[in-house]
Amino acid sequence: MPSFSDFDCAQMARALQLAALGQYSAHPNPMVGCVIVKNERVVAEGWHERAGEPHAEIKALAAAGNDARDATVYVTLEPCAHHGKTPPCAEALVQAGISKVIAAMQDPFPSVAGRGFEVLRNAGVTTEVGLMQTAAESLNAGFIARVTRNRPMVRIKVAASIDGATAMKSGESQWITGPEARDDVQRLRARSGAIMTGIGTVLADDPSLNVRLKELTAAGLQPLRVVLDSNLRMPLSAGMLALAGETLVCCTGKHDYARLREAGAEVRSYAADGAGVDAAAVLSDLAERGVNDVLVEAGPGVAGYLLQKELVDELVIYQAPHIMGSETRSMFHTPSWLALADRKRLEISDVRRIGDDTRITARVQY
Amino acid sequence: MPSFSDFDCAQMARALQLAALGQYSAHPNPMVGCVIVKNERVVAEGWHERAGEPHAEIKALAAAGNDARDATVYVTLEPCAHHGKTPPCAEALVQAGISKVIAAMQDPFPSVAGRGFEVLRNAGVTTEVGLMQTAAESLNAGFIARVTRNRPMVRIKVAASIDGATAMKSGESQWITGPEARDDVQRLRARSGAIMTGIGTVLADDPSLNVRLKELTAAGLQPLRVVLDSNLRMPLSAGMLALAGETLVCCTGKHDYARLREAGAEVRSYAADGAGVDAAAVLSDLAERGVNDVLVEAGPGVAGYLLQKELVDELVIYQAPHIMGSETRSMFHTPSWLALADRKRLEISDVRRIGDDTRITARVQY
Repeated sequence: MPSFSDFDCAQMARALQLAALGQYSAHPNPMVGCVIVKNERVVAEGWHERAGEPHAEIKALAAAGNDARDATVYVTLEPCAHHGKTPPCAEALVQAGISKVIAAMQDPFPSVAGRGFEVLRNAGVTTEVGLMQTAAESLNAGFIARVTRNRPMVRIKVAASIDGATAMKSGESQWITGPEARDDVQRLRARSGAIMTGIGTVLADDPSLNVRLKELTAAGLQPLRVVLDSNLRMPLSAGMLALAGETLVCCTGKHDYARLREAGAEVRSYAADGAGVDAAAVLSDLAERGVNDVLVEAGPGVAGYLLQKELVDELVIYQAPHIMGSETRSMFHTPSWLALADRKRLEISDVRRIGDDTRITARVQY
Repeated sequence: MPSFSDFDCAQMARALQLAALGQYSAHPNPMVGCVIVKNERVVAEGWHERAGEPHAEIKALAAAGNDARDATVYVTLEPCAHHGKTPPCAEALVQAGISKVIAAMQDPFPSVAGRGFEVLRNAGVTTEVGLMQTAAESLNAGFIARVTRNRPMVRIKVAASIDGATAMKSGESQWITGPEARDDVQRLRARSGAIMTGIGTVLADDPSLNVRLKELTAAGLQPLRVVLDSNLRMPLSAGMLALAGETLVCCTGKHDYARLREAGAEVRSYAADGAGVDAAAVLSDLAERGVNDVLVEAGPGVAGYLLQKELVDELVIYQAPHIMGSETRSMFHTPSWLALADRKRLEISDVRRIGDDTRITARVQY
C-alpha cells in the first residue's frame, strides 16, 4: 500500500470535485476527474462531461500542453487502455511524458482492471492506486454496480411525513414535501439513467417523471422512464409518452402493443414474478442498456416489492415536518415481513435539511 | 429595551448552564441559575437544586460574601418577592448591596410578575430584563405552561422505525431503538414530573416507567406514574405498584378501588370523554399537583387521542435506522384525521444522533 501525502490528498479531493461536475451528463460513462501537477503546482485540470467526448485525462493533457512532461497525474479512476469511442488514455499519458499517475481506484470492469496501469508501468510511468478509493467508489456506485453485478444501482425516493405516511387512505398526497425537496428530486432524476414506477402510479397520478429544472436539462439528457405494467394497462394518453425522452413499458406475456408503440412507448415483455413483472429481469435489461442508476418513484406496492426482493441499494427519504396519523398509506407494502426480525437495517450515509424537509439517504443492509 | 454587551451575554449563558444543572431535581420549582460579577470578574455562582433548598440568588450571594457589594447579578428568572419556603430573593439582593440585576425573563406567574423588580428598583437597584429570554423560556417551558395555562407541558416520546412503525401487528416491539436511546429516555423521565400511559400498555407490557439510571436516581425523585384507565382494569400485580414513587390510576365513574389502593395505587375518578378519561381534566389536576412536565409513553391509541385533542406540546421521536414495512402499527391512532389538511405541522427544534438512532425533537403547531 503506497503512502500518500496531504498534498496528494488535496489533489485527489479536487479531482473528485471535478469528476462530480459530470454527475448530470457523464452517464452511462463513469464520472472522472483529473488534476495534473508539476513542481507541486497544479498545471491543468479536466473532467469527463459526456459519453463520446474526451476523457478527463485527455482534457487535462490538452490544457497542460508541454507542462505535462515529467508531471504527476491525479485521476479518480484507472486510465483506460482500450480503444472505445476515444483513444486509450494510458497511451496518451505515456506520450505526453507523464512520470507518475496516482489513481483513486482500479477500473471496476473485471476483464480490464489493471490494464491501464500495466500500459503505464511498461512505459516506465510510476503508478499508485487507492488514494480516496472509498469516495471514488461511492461517486460511481451506479457505474460499478452495472459493470460488476450487471444491475444498476437501485435507489428508492420516498416523500413521507415524520410518522411515515406517504398519502391519506383516500390517495390524497399532493405536496407532502416542499418546493426545495421537489427541486432536489429533479437533481436525483438528472443523475439517474432511468426512473422506474408502477402502472398504479401512472393510472392514479399520470406523472411526468422527467427532468424539468432548466440548469439540469442543458445537458439534454432525459432519464429513461420505466413502467412496470404486467397486464399492459398503460393508457395511450399517459402524459409521459408525449415528453422528450423515452418510455419503456414492461409487461409480461403476450399483448398487442402496436398502438402503444405508435403513441411513443417502447414495450417489452419480461419474465413474470407472481402476478407482476420480474423486476430483477427488468433491472438486468436496464444494465445492458447502459443504465447505471435507477431511481424508483413509485407507490408502496412497487417499492415494497423491490425491498422484499432485496433489489434496493439505497433509500432517499424526504421527510416532511408533519404528522399525518393513522388514516394513511405507508411507505412500503411488505406483506411477507411479519416478524420484527424481518425488518431491514439501514446504514444512514447522509441527513440534511432541504427547505423545511429533512432528506435521509441510507443504504439498505441485507 | 435595554442593550446588552457581549460580556452580558456570556454571563447569562453561564447562568443558563448553571440553571440546567437542576433539570433532574428542581421541579416543581423552575430551574434558575445566577452569576455575580464585580469589576468584570465573576465572583460567585449559584443554581437552584431542589424545592425547599435555597434559591440560586441566595446560594450565589452566600458564595460572594462581601464581594456582593456594588456587584451585578445575572439571573435567569426574575428574583422572587414573596415569602415561600425560603425568604424573598429580591430583599436579600438589596441587603447584600447589589447595584444591578439583569434577568433573562419576568416571573411567569401573572399575579407576581414584576414584583421582584419593583422591590429592587424601590431600593435603588438598577434592573434590566430580556437578555436571552427565549432560551430561558425554553428551559422552563413546563413550569411556564403550568403557571400560565394550568396545564403541564405534554411531551410524547415515540420509538419508531424510519418508516414510522412502532411495533409489528402482532405487538412485537422490543428493542426497536438501541441502548443509548433507552438511556436517553431515562433522562427524559427524570426531567418529568409525571409519566403518562394507557391501561392497554400496562396490560400488554407491564412497564416500570421509573427512573433507573444511577446518576439520575441520586436526587431521589421519581416521576408520578399516571395510568389512563377509564374502566379501572389496572391489575393489582402491575409491576409499577411495587416500585419507588407513586402511581395515579385515572378512571371515570364509580368503582370499588379499595384493593388497588391497598396495592399501592392512588385512584381518582375524572370526567369522561367518550369511552375514555378526559385527559384535559387529568392534565389540569396534574398541574395543580405541581407537575411541570408530563412525558407520555403510551401506545398509538393514547398518543393519537392526545394529538387529536391538541393537548400535545412536543414530540420526541427516537427513529431507528430500520424499515419495518406495512405489517406494523403506526405511531398515532387518529381516526378523525381523514384529509391531508388534518395533518399537524411540526417545528423541529433539535435533531441528533443517539447511538445508532436519530432523536427528533419537535413542537406541534396547532
